[in-house]
Amino acid sequence: MTIGVVGLGLIGGSLALALRAGGHVVLGADQSGDHEREALDRGLVEECVRTEDLAARCDLVAVAVPVDVAVDVCRTLLELPGAATILELGSTKAVLAKAFSQHPERLRLVLSHPMAGTEFSGPGAAVEGLYFTRTVVLCDREDSGLEHFARAERVFAELGMRPVEMLSAPHDLHVAYVSHISHISSFALSLTVLRKERDEAQIFNLAAGGFASTVRLAKSNPQTWAPILAQNSEHIVEVLDEYIDVLDAFRNALRDGKQADLYELISAANHIAAVLPKNLSL
Amino acid sequence: MTIGVVGLGLIGGSLALALRAGGHVVLGADQSGDHEREALDRGLVEECVRTEDLAARCDLVAVAVPVDVAVDVCRTLLELPGAATILELGSTKAVLAKAFSQHPERLRLVLSHPMAGTEFSGPGAAVEGLYFTRTVVLCDREDSGLEHFARAERVFAELGMRPVEMLSAPHDLHVAYVSHISHISSFALSLTVLRKERDEAQIFNLAAGGFASTVRLAKSNPQTWAPILAQNSEHIVEVLDEYIDVLDAFRNALRDGKQADLYELISAANHIAAVLPKNLSL
Repeated sequence: MTIGVVGLGLIGGSLALALRAGGHVVLGADQSGDHEREALDRGLVEECVRTEDLAARCDLVAVAVPVDVAVDVCRTLLELPGAATILELGSTKAVLAKAFSQHPERLRLVLSHPMAGTEFSGPGAAVEGLYFTRTVVLCDREDSGLEHFARAERVFAELGMRPVEMLSAPHDLHVAYVSHISHISSFALSLTVLRKERDEAQIFNLAAGGFASTVRLAKSNPQTWAPILAQNSEHIVEVLDEYIDVLDAFRNALRDGKQADLYELISAANHIAAVLPKNLSL
Repeated sequence: MTIGVVGLGLIGGSLALALRAGGHVVLGADQSGDHEREALDRGLVEECVRTEDLAARCDLVAVAVPVDVAVDVCRTLLELPGAATILELGSTKAVLAKAFSQHPERLRLVLSHPMAGTEFSGPGAAVEGLYFTRTVVLCDREDSGLEHFARAERVFAELGMRPVEMLSAPHDLHVAYVSHISHISSFALSLTVLRKERDEAQIFNLAAGGFASTVRLAKSNPQTWAPILAQNSEHIVEVLDEYIDVLDAFRNALRDGKQADLYELISAANHIAAVLPKNLSL
């Protein structure tokens, strides 16, 4: 296939690399000229072209842009002449589903969410194996044309991903619960430590692997994450309220010297080990 | 040297492995007979002996037990006949410093905190390279005898650790700020996700590397961590209050749809990348 990728950062760049390795012709586009040059230098794509040319020349165009511009980019692609499948890859889905529910070209749009990423961003962060063995959520099968949905499935199968299907609305709820809240917990941990520990040399000295792990996501790009959190704010506020309640339970047990309560809370938290995939690397 | 290790879990077992690899004779003791057998089976120690024999036969005895029993174990060792250096390795220091401030054998006690660990526990979790390149905090140099402090320094140097010195009281403050809060943030994240996401298959499906990273510490042993949090509760409540304040700032920005505020918060959180050691693995 000839495949286009709009947005040549971590997500789009990694996709491009893996697709090229799989023998596809991959064309790219990014609103940043610097990103396009870096993507070409690193061999992420064969050529950078205008959006119009992507729509005309490709069998499938993947859209890997911040979620606050995804609607505009998908609309532009759907409304240019061409018959390509438009495969959108962002972390929120309900806004897109709603925006295109009545669109005459809706059948060409496939909404997906590959559950993969790192704390790094830009074309320099792209890695070929990012998607291998990871889950991809495919949303709203009934709203896409059969051949377009099948084409998206084929691409993800070639990447070695595990498909899961879900409607957009529950997708946004579940990712708020499982994924988005962990970014907030990490951003907040970083800010807390930076505010309380004014002596940055002590952070350097005392940070062990545990801190590095919990604070890793705090390095994530605000251009990516502010729009994701804003678009999914309703569900995230709900899970954040629960998170603050749980922290209050820890706080009360600590204040009242109730070591047995701390033991109970930690034991209950340990249950996560039984629920997570065993082979999930960080 | 002949070195004793009391407590053959992750911390003591990893120490024993590294010391044996360095050519020392290592004797062990654990209150659990199962742990002693497992430690022998895995070759962590050459022999398991009674505490009395450790005190008599060793040049140095490392104490790697939960912090709520560390005072008792150190006292027992200091009051048995023998001249060994007693090297304590727990995550809190002020309680020990106070308990032994007037003890006639105080010079033989060295208080330390190797900043290393994993989320696993018990003799099966021991790994030889746990301490290599990591920081070790050595506390209250003036309260230990010269030769005992120097012996502890030599052991950590042989392990390839980077020593940092600090008094006990600021140690407990700084580790609350940098280390203990990250465990609470992770325990609470696990509990939140388990409570909100009743459908555990969705956790399995949607957990990406980011979630695995932030929730990793939530697998940590409650027997180790409940006493640490309880002993350092005053400092931890203080940093936990700040953490909850920061989360409230995220909550308000989300509720009020202030994407620019979210952007600012995330950008400020990104600064942690500049402060952490570059080579710190998770």
